[in-house]
Amino acid sequence: MRAVVIGAGTETARIDGISAAGADPEAMVHTPGADLEIVAYGAPVLSPVVPVSPSGCPTPALVTRAARELLGFEVLSVDAGLVRPTGAPTVTVGEEAGKDVRKACPVSNGRDVFEAARRFGRALPDDELMTGETIPGGTTTAMAVLSALGERTTVSSSLQKNPLSLKQRVVEEALAASDLSEGGAADEPIEALRCMGDPMLAAAVGFVRGASETGTDVTLAGGTQMAAVGALARHAGVEASLTLATTSFVVRDDSADIDGLAADLDIDLVVTDPGFEELDHPATNAYIAGEAKEGVGMGGALALCKRAGVPMAEVSDRVVTVYERLVGNGQADVNRTEP
Amino acid sequence: MRAVVIGAGTETARIDGISAAGADPEAMVHTPGADLEIVAYGAPVLSPVVPVSPSGCPTPALVTRAARELLGFEVLSVDAGLVRPTGAPTVTVGEEAGKDVRKACPVSNGRDVFEAARRFGRALPDDELMTGETIPGGTTTAMAVLSALGERTTVSSSLQKNPLSLKQRVVEEALAASDLSEGGAADEPIEALRCMGDPMLAAAVGFVRGASETGTDVTLAGGTQMAAVGALARHAGVEASLTLATTSFVVRDDSADIDGLAADLDIDLVVTDPGFEELDHPATNAYIAGEAKEGVGMGGALALCKRAGVPMAEVSDRVVTVYERLVGNGQADVNRTEP
Repeated sequence: MRAVVIGAGTETARIDGISAAGADPEAMVHTPGADLEIVAYGAPVLSPVVPVSPSGCPTPALVTRAARELLGFEVLSVDAGLVRPTGAPTVTVGEEAGKDVRKACPVSNGRDVFEAARRFGRALPDDELMTGETIPGGTTTAMAVLSALGERTTVSSSLQKNPLSLKQRVVEEALAASDLSEGGAADEPIEALRCMGDPMLAAAVGFVRGASETGTDVTLAGGTQMAAVGALARHAGVEASLTLATTSFVVRDDSADIDGLAADLDIDLVVTDPGFEELDHPATNAYIAGEAKEGVGMGGALALCKRAGVPMAEVSDRVVTVYERLVGNGQADVNRTEP
Repeated sequence: MRAVVIGAGTETARIDGISAAGADPEAMVHTPGADLEIVAYGAPVLSPVVPVSPSGCPTPALVTRAARELLGFEVLSVDAGLVRPTGAPTVTVGEEAGKDVRKACPVSNGRDVFEAARRFGRALPDDELMTGETIPGGTTTAMAVLSALGERTTVSSSLQKNPLSLKQRVVEEALAASDLSEGGAADEPIEALRCMGDPMLAAAVGFVRGASETGTDVTLAGGTQMAAVGALARHAGVEASLTLATTSFVVRDDSADIDGLAADLDIDLVVTDPGFEELDHPATNAYIAGEAKEGVGMGGALALCKRAGVPMAEVSDRVVTVYERLVGNGQADVNRTEP
């Protein structure tokens, strides 16, 4: 089992109020690179911060790292177009961050990214791969892509309260900018991701397509963004069985309707509840309140722990350990607003 | 423990008869990238070949991979200036391969590579690091650097018979091209590696310097190339204790005089004999005959196995398994000349 985490940027994240994947827009450009470093090394290395939401919720990268420390699975970081360089070792499949989805063709290199990732997915020798993402603003581009494909546009949010009407407005502007109607890019996944997506989506669907061509078992680790990858894969002709491993926090988010989305796409849903309610700790409390919910492969990492028989209490304890280690270094509080 | 493998290219490898790190000069440009892929995934991924010497000796990357499969240690691949892109996830500290060492300033970006690697070595959170290399032609640039520093110019070779007089001639031409005398760059390690070195040396010494600044324990995993890194580190003011973990094949090579070199530099020498004599297999026989000897961190990987109490017979068995897996895929024979 190898976990593939795909990082990228999109200017869509700069739209005010769209994402909580960083303390502020300035910090947000560092989030994907920092997430990859935390999963790779257990701490940021070249990135200046531990990503936290404006209210102080730490990045789900801590959960994926905790799972990795318990299970020792291998992680492959993929750079699909990061805004800032990361200190994590990466395979690069794209060199440019995405433009604002309200512009025409925000992912102009989308076909190249797709093809590079596809070659790569085909080449990996693993029998089983899990793939997750880190891209602030990604649920909005996911919604835009689902709209262009004519799929159910129900997406989750890293914010406690999903800014759905704002997202809907952005998607409408995006459709108009690319002269597309809802469902106008059905069966044209490359068109959908070039006009309405982000570089992570381009890389992830290429990757899934390539891996499935060689019979590799693929788990999409994440929430509605990874479901959008599944939608793109289905529209790209991937018929292999696909699993979406997500968290109970995404399932509890009615605006996400992850069950409906997965069912539409004939994707098996695996849900893991980390049992954070058992703790009362700043590392986990914001999740219970409905922030963050998913990301950086969190749902998949939890599913791996469950499959390996690691009790969720042990996972939570390790999340706290990782958090304390980072806070102990004075790093986690850098951008944290005390509640 | 994290093993750092630094890959790069130098046009010095194109000098006829200088290196056996590839079946021919055409194949040799793929060697570092393929080595990194083999250590990362157990097989080449984007590289077209499994590196073999002209006589068919497989790359020492197989040994490092075998050790990794037994012990599960983490590997960080560093791109210091590869000729061809690799499919292994990398941290990039340099974008250019080195020029022929007989030209003036073959590593013109050497200071930048050194500084990037130094920052990186300082940033890594590990208590203990091991660092190895993959760069065809590297013993010649190592000899050139040792000469410029005024150290003993005894180096090993991937060839059974070390082409010492050829190397000596190349070093003399290199000194002349850079207007340097033997010892002319003592205490000027950056000057030495820019004028006489290769990008791997620039990255490795930067890395050692940075890691030692934060008290990280560093093991140089390799033969005379890594000893040259140690020499550069000493001339760069690194006073921390350093260990060189190498193979019995390097020690048996009188032209290398690794004991003398290590003693001169106040570097502890750890030698591991993998006991390949116990086997009679194409994966290991060429080592007994004196080919390859070291590379891709082999000596360090064997030392880790020994420290963990893994019997060398088990390591050899795993080397054979890795080899058979690659040959079974029809990949190892691609560039192999049958004896």
